[in-house]
Amino acid sequence: MPEYSVAQLLEHVNSSYSKPGNERVRQIAERMIADIYRVIVDFNVSHAELWSCFTWLNELGTAKQAGLVGAGLGLERLLDILADEADQHAQRAPGTPRAIEGPLYIPHAPLSKHEARLDDGSETGEPLVMEGTVRNTQGHAVPQAIVDVWHAGQGGGYSFFDPSLQAFNYRRRIETDEQGHYLFRSLLPPGYGVPPDSPTQQLLDVLGRHGSRPAHIHFMISAKNHVTLTTQVNIPGDPYLNDDFAFATRDALVVDLQKMTDPKQIAQYRQQGPFTYIAFGFTLQVVDEGLPKNS
Amino acid sequence: MPEYSVAQLLEHVNSSYSKPGNERVRQIAERMIADIYRVIVDFNVSHAELWSCFTWLNELGTAKQAGLVGAGLGLERLLDILADEADQHAQRAPGTPRAIEGPLYIPHAPLSKHEARLDDGSETGEPLVMEGTVRNTQGHAVPQAIVDVWHAGQGGGYSFFDPSLQAFNYRRRIETDEQGHYLFRSLLPPGYGVPPDSPTQQLLDVLGRHGSRPAHIHFMISAKNHVTLTTQVNIPGDPYLNDDFAFATRDALVVDLQKMTDPKQIAQYRQQGPFTYIAFGFTLQVVDEGLPKNS
Repeated sequence: MPEYSVAQLLEHVNSSYSKPGNERVRQIAERMIADIYRVIVDFNVSHAELWSCFTWLNELGTAKQAGLVGAGLGLERLLDILADEADQHAQRAPGTPRAIEGPLYIPHAPLSKHEARLDDGSETGEPLVMEGTVRNTQGHAVPQAIVDVWHAGQGGGYSFFDPSLQAFNYRRRIETDEQGHYLFRSLLPPGYGVPPDSPTQQLLDVLGRHGSRPAHIHFMISAKNHVTLTTQVNIPGDPYLNDDFAFATRDALVVDLQKMTDPKQIAQYRQQGPFTYIAFGFTLQVVDEGLPKNS
Repeated sequence: MPEYSVAQLLEHVNSSYSKPGNERVRQIAERMIADIYRVIVDFNVSHAELWSCFTWLNELGTAKQAGLVGAGLGLERLLDILADEADQHAQRAPGTPRAIEGPLYIPHAPLSKHEARLDDGSETGEPLVMEGTVRNTQGHAVPQAIVDVWHAGQGGGYSFFDPSLQAFNYRRRIETDEQGHYLFRSLLPPGYGVPPDSPTQQLLDVLGRHGSRPAHIHFMISAKNHVTLTTQVNIPGDPYLNDDFAFATRDALVVDLQKMTDPKQIAQYRQQGPFTYIAFGFTLQVVDEGLPKNS
């Protein structure tokens, strides 16, 4: 059996195939393995350091935080940049700016027609009404679009991840009406940070980074013959608005907040008292032959 | 807030420090993040592919298999190659060839003087006696060396990982006698493979690789003023001897098996009948100023 040099070992590892495999995964894996070898050699990584890395990866996975770390390294924002560049290259009209999905989306939220209340009444906070119209890049309203919306509870956690919240609290799907209009009532969400004592925070600490995200509301908006839009809107005034852990905030996604105190408005929007109001419309790209259905 | 190009995003991610951090971790992380960005750009990695990767990493960590995958990518063998090269560069006498620790070591195994029985009698198989002398690169026997030995049970699993095995079955520490001699009785271990349906096997399947390791016995040998030696010996005749999943087998570590049938030998080694015998000595490097205590 051979005694390998570093280069020989790498070549052997990256050709030790005994059965058919997936050629794309092979190519990506071979590149990443070569990259890792170079890191180990260039930095003279020690046995203890390599095992610290394995232990951390095991803890990261056990905490289900690979996607959280990925967002924190900007990988999701990177995909959005590449999708924007592809639009520009193809001279496709852009829709509402993309923003990252993040690791906290849950499909199959309860579906309502035209409007919904997102919170289940178990928490108190600043009442919020948000409404707007879903249009497309051709200027037409999009009826029967599905506005899938999710945001944090008052403690900064999400249902399905924060055990203090009931299933689907602050998560709904809303079908737009014939004019493309949606509306929801909820509580204005706070900013929040990576869980303390988590593997993600452990990495951030050793890098000297913070894990804070400014307050935001997530959207995934889909409609027949349109490209699904994944985005977020940001609440102005948050100290981390320009310093997001996930590098995901964008100017055009910062909404205006209006404080509504007029009893007529309170009655019109079926609130109990003063509330915060956001008007925000979304623009979807139309599916054409050059564009995948989901991007 | 800025709209980033790919290069601008990478630069921002790799400089977004708000407090002191560990400079070495930062440097390694910055390199790896840049490598990952290049992979995503060069391969035009899709949203679905990135999320498959996150999901797989979460499953890998939950299964505590980061170290197993690392061994399968040759990362542990790579460290051994680098340690061998450092010996050569420093013109240090090599000891017994290094071989990988693997992810299945458990410290604090029961300690015996001079000899031990590794198996607890709950399984049957080919009886094994292995003995030899621990010497150092100056030719001296090493008394009171600790021979920490661990190997698989008859089903191919290890205690603490395979729930069918009691704690510390097939794991012992043996203190060498005044002549540096150790001896143990056990059962000849079989080869084995990566757990089926595991995240590691899932990666191997998509790469088109097998996950088999040839039969082997692990050792970690330590003694005062000597460099701790981590190695394995391999059982000859295994079909994977030259095709190890972990790229860890080495010619000088393949032992000779002797079948002992003479009643005198059976009595001498306190066996009940014919058994397999291995004689194998280990050579430790002496600690000098240029060599860390553990390498």
